[in-house]
Amino acid sequence: MAQNLTFYQEIADAFLQADQMATGLPQYLGFRITGFEPGKLFAEMEVRPELLTPIGNMHGGVVAAFCDHMLGTVCYPHMPTGYWAATTEFKLNLTAPISRGVVKAVASVMVMTRSTAVIRIDMENEGRAVCCAQGTCLLRAPK
Amino acid sequence: MAQNLTFYQEIADAFLQADQMATGLPQYLGFRITGFEPGKLFAEMEVRPELLTPIGNMHGGVVAAFCDHMLGTVCYPHMPTGYWAATTEFKLNLTAPISRGVVKAVASVMVMTRSTAVIRIDMENEGRAVCCAQGTCLLRAPK
Amino acid sequence: MAQNLTFYQEIADAFLQADQMATGLPQYLGFRITGFEPGKLFAEMEVRPELLTPIGNMHGGVVAAFCDHMLGTVCYPHMPTGYWAATTEFKLNLTAPISRGVVKAVASVMVMTRSTAVIRIDMENEGRAVCCAQGTCLLRAPK
Amino acid sequence: MAQNLTFYQEIADAFLQADQMATGLPQYLGFRITGFEPGKLFAEMEVRPELLTPIGNMHGGVVAAFCDHMLGTVCYPHMPTGYWAATTEFKLNLTAPISRGVVKAVASVMVMTRSTAVIRIDMENEGRAVCCAQGTCLLRAPK
Repeated sequence: MAQNLTFYQEIADAFLQADQMATGLPQYLGFRITGFEPGKLFAEMEVRPELLTPIGNMHGGVVAAFCDHMLGTVCYPHMPTGYWAATTEFKLNLTAPISRGVVKAVASVMVMTRSTAVIRIDMENEGRAVCCAQGTCLLRAPK
Repeated sequence: MAQNLTFYQEIADAFLQADQMATGLPQYLGFRITGFEPGKLFAEMEVRPELLTPIGNMHGGVVAAFCDHMLGTVCYPHMPTGYWAATTEFKLNLTAPISRGVVKAVASVMVMTRSTAVIRIDMENEGRAVCCAQGTCLLRAPK
Repeated sequence: MAQNLTFYQEIADAFLQADQMATGLPQYLGFRITGFEPGKLFAEMEVRPELLTPIGNMHGGVVAAFCDHMLGTVCYPHMPTGYWAATTEFKLNLTAPISRGVVKAVASVMVMTRSTAVIRIDMENEGRAVCCAQGTCLLRAPK
Repeated sequence: MAQNLTFYQEIADAFLQADQMATGLPQYLGFRITGFEPGKLFAEMEVRPELLTPIGNMHGGVVAAFCDHMLGTVCYPHMPTGYWAATTEFKLNLTAPISRGVVKAVASVMVMTRSTAVIRIDMENEGRAVCCAQGTCLLRAPK
């Protein structure tokens, strides 16, 4: 994991607060931020019946969307207020089916420069690794 | 694109029918299958206001979920009834922001063996390329 | 593929010339540029016995190195003299083993902006698709 | 990292021995296995002048080939004798240029089933992270 990252606790706190009023995709899928640490974001979501496919497994698109959501979010407490992060690319491996319980996810900043961050994500469900991902965010100063 | 793929028109037709009764994630995000051809799946979705982030761009997680959805779906008309396809991994590049209109997507089977398929996806919105993706589905015979 | 790319024929010609004096990795692996078109690079390499593993298949690392080499090279004729391209990330699927003959590769620019390009690569050997790749180059003006 | 992996010390020892007689790509690029642990492979390589591009940075293809090499190799001590591992796909991010010194790499098995393994790779050079990768190996029993 990246060393010596700047970490703004007040931005992390603001994200935790704002998360309770999430709308749109994060609200529908039930993504909940549970904590920040320097270089880390912790989040989770419940596996609701309507997110399962007819076969009984959670739609892989939920996991993919969760990855995208975490990629951007983990960057914010490591940048001054007003900066923004945009996911430009990522890759994920779905390593086991998900059908019940809670998905717990951790995002880790591997490398962060002024303009870019490389991030990894790990998810587990019912004691098994269900997703490993890796991707890039573009970081931008306010205009 | 893969050559000489077997193509079951009746399975394609059944998917087109069933798609109108989609529930869960595909229904919430409004993924609509618009057609199949040998080796190809065409689909689209509308950019609804509730899918935008506070910055005004569509949440990247919607595009990621759409990729996952297409990866599995494109395989079905190329396998006998009862077989299933599970996405095991994919990678996507988000190449332009999306804020309105319709996202049109094409999935192309690049290579298909008995047990695996490699697929590419291209999406465009308002005349611009917005996503390029590539991934793998595992193919399984009925038990 | 990307539309309306600027294409400098004289830079393409210079790369074709310089390629015959390649040293280091490209020389050892025998990468040969065979042509440029707007948005496209064509190249090939021979499968030499010393590049096979004990099992008799070409080392996957050769294909991976070939991808990286093409990612950067395809960009040059689309930028003014003095600009450079650096691969920042890519993903590849190895879709069939390689054991003899020639590997023919095509790189296609999917999207190119002032600062970045997304590129796809396809390789075939003995009539089969052996590799599909997708990645990003960072583009930089001369200092 | 994966828990409860079977680990055959004698296979690890055999790989360490055989590595000294490597030929072809691994020999040319100077990949040296320095150790195995359950779920881990450690390796390194020297940055030789002939591996640099005209700009003075090591060719990205060397790093890509090193990833591919480690992906397969890390699996062997975790499978019975006679089994083999084939890389089917991976993704890498090149996070800093390399121009001198030694590249130290670690491969970590994230998930391993009977037929597949998901692996991550981290490389550092001169105190900086230079590559993060993630990919899949197919595992096969002897015929």
